Amino acid sequence: MTSQSASNSPTSPAVAEDVLQVRQCVAKARGKGQSIGFVPTMGALHAGHVSLIERARAECGYVVVSIFVNPTQFGPHEDFQKYPRPRSLDLQICGDAGADLVFYPTVDVMYPAGYQTFVEVGGLSDILEGAIRPGHFRGVATVVTKLFMIAGADKAYFGQKDYQQQLMIRIMSRELNLPIEIVTCDTRRDPDGLAMSSRNAYLTPTEREAGLCLSRALFRTRQRFADGERNPENLSRVLRQEIAATPSAVVDYAVIVDPDTLSEPTKSASKMVALVAARFGTTRLIDNLLLESVD
Amino acid sequence: MTSQSASNSPTSPAVAEDVLQVRQCVAKARGKGQSIGFVPTMGALHAGHVSLIERARAECGYVVVSIFVNPTQFGPHEDFQKYPRPRSLDLQICGDAGADLVFYPTVDVMYPAGYQTFVEVGGLSDILEGAIRPGHFRGVATVVTKLFMIAGADKAYFGQKDYQQQLMIRIMSRELNLPIEIVTCDTRRDPDGLAMSSRNAYLTPTEREAGLCLSRALFRTRQRFADGERNPENLSRVLRQEIAATPSAVVDYAVIVDPDTLSEPTKSASKMVALVAARFGTTRLIDNLLLESVD
Repeated sequence: MTSQSASNSPTSPAVAEDVLQVRQCVAKARGKGQSIGFVPTMGALHAGHVSLIERARAECGYVVVSIFVNPTQFGPHEDFQKYPRPRSLDLQICGDAGADLVFYPTVDVMYPAGYQTFVEVGGLSDILEGAIRPGHFRGVATVVTKLFMIAGADKAYFGQKDYQQQLMIRIMSRELNLPIEIVTCDTRRDPDGLAMSSRNAYLTPTEREAGLCLSRALFRTRQRFADGERNPENLSRVLRQEIAATPSAVVDYAVIVDPDTLSEPTKSASKMVALVAARFGTTRLIDNLLLESVD
Repeated sequence: MTSQSASNSPTSPAVAEDVLQVRQCVAKARGKGQSIGFVPTMGALHAGHVSLIERARAECGYVVVSIFVNPTQFGPHEDFQKYPRPRSLDLQICGDAGADLVFYPTVDVMYPAGYQTFVEVGGLSDILEGAIRPGHFRGVATVVTKLFMIAGADKAYFGQKDYQQQLMIRIMSRELNLPIEIVTCDTRRDPDGLAMSSRNAYLTPTEREAGLCLSRALFRTRQRFADGERNPENLSRVLRQEIAATPSAVVDYAVIVDPDTLSEPTKSASKMVALVAARFGTTRLIDNLLLESVD
């Protein structure tokens, strides 16, 4: 195990690169009666991740963050190689946000040669993000199961920005009886409305400006819902029209669905979720908003 | 939670039918500093199961046995409905063997409506038993993962009789980082050599007599190995010839393979495993023996 050098902030977390180190640290914390909070990430940390770590810090005695760019959730033509890996900065951010331990494994530690075990949530894995990114959710379900088993945490924290992902992880955890509570935290946004994402760094200024059509469309749709519109078809028309006003947006999907099943909502449902995904140049952005009656 | 009536042996275990009850009992045992041993079964317990429970009793402070005839590991034309479920006798056997708690869930507890999460060990799930029983190992991997998560045990005990199953569970546990140790226990046999199995109860006396060809063939093959034969082809010829001498045996496979991968062994390997499966009337039996150099 390595520790950050003395010149760094005293809050710098311990860094573990293998499973046994994590287990020992967690066992030691448990021995002190501490509860364990866990924040799995792919690094390239932003204020959204920070909010997850801070929430874990507030709710748990010992906070583990994992940083692992998981190859099994990337398609063959996706950005696995190019995905940013700013190690020193990420470790500093973890420490500042209150992490006690950062698990930073290599691919070989997570997937030794001949690796062959996978977890899959049927149905949900094949629609929307799953339809566009075949194998993506199988990779997520597998790595999250492994990380949960390694961290042995009481609570795990996910961002709502990846709505379908957190829903799948909730279903998986419930169905496999994983002894962990899933906490979903609000999406963090830049002041202009863009949902924070490590992939935003890929955007040119023009693409970023165009990308704002997603959050604009979501907010407009939520306003319509708040104004009383309950017909999913009318709501999705609002959503799509607002995005269509930005011709450079190449839409993968823009839908209004049931928040628990991601299937078609009933017409008078009091809760729906608007999900959008679109490409801007070579960068793909996703975003979502819950539509909920306050009554 | 129900407890056996006072007229029963004082060793009668507690019986839990839901997940929370198991977790509470296990947490209480952990609170006393006890280690947890776990024996997953489908009931219809015989001396093979008893030896697993007794081993767990000897090695662990608190012993959980599960009895669940798992529908997802049965094919559509297999014996799920017919599989024996002698509840009272099974509970008595568990108690006598030293179990502290029996988890006896319904299908609805394990697989609520809409269940969609599965665990799969690629490669190994598609050969030998997996080739003949498509989906079988996916069902086993899934239910075993769930049961491990429910029992929260330190050690789980499996019989070597289901060789491919225990190997798959070892691989799955290692690859998913499940925090549990897998212990494989020797196959128990009747005095005539027949490997104990809940399915032996299906056999007519004539079928049972015929079924002995499997263990006879395995013992003869092991003798050849002990005599110095190291050519897998020659060994598998011995295996198949001995079974062929019983024409009523309908062989699914009879092979000599590498004990860790179930692929073809090298010619001078010091360790191989002989695996056999055959049908006798409507009953399918499997058996195996490790071939190991003692030098």
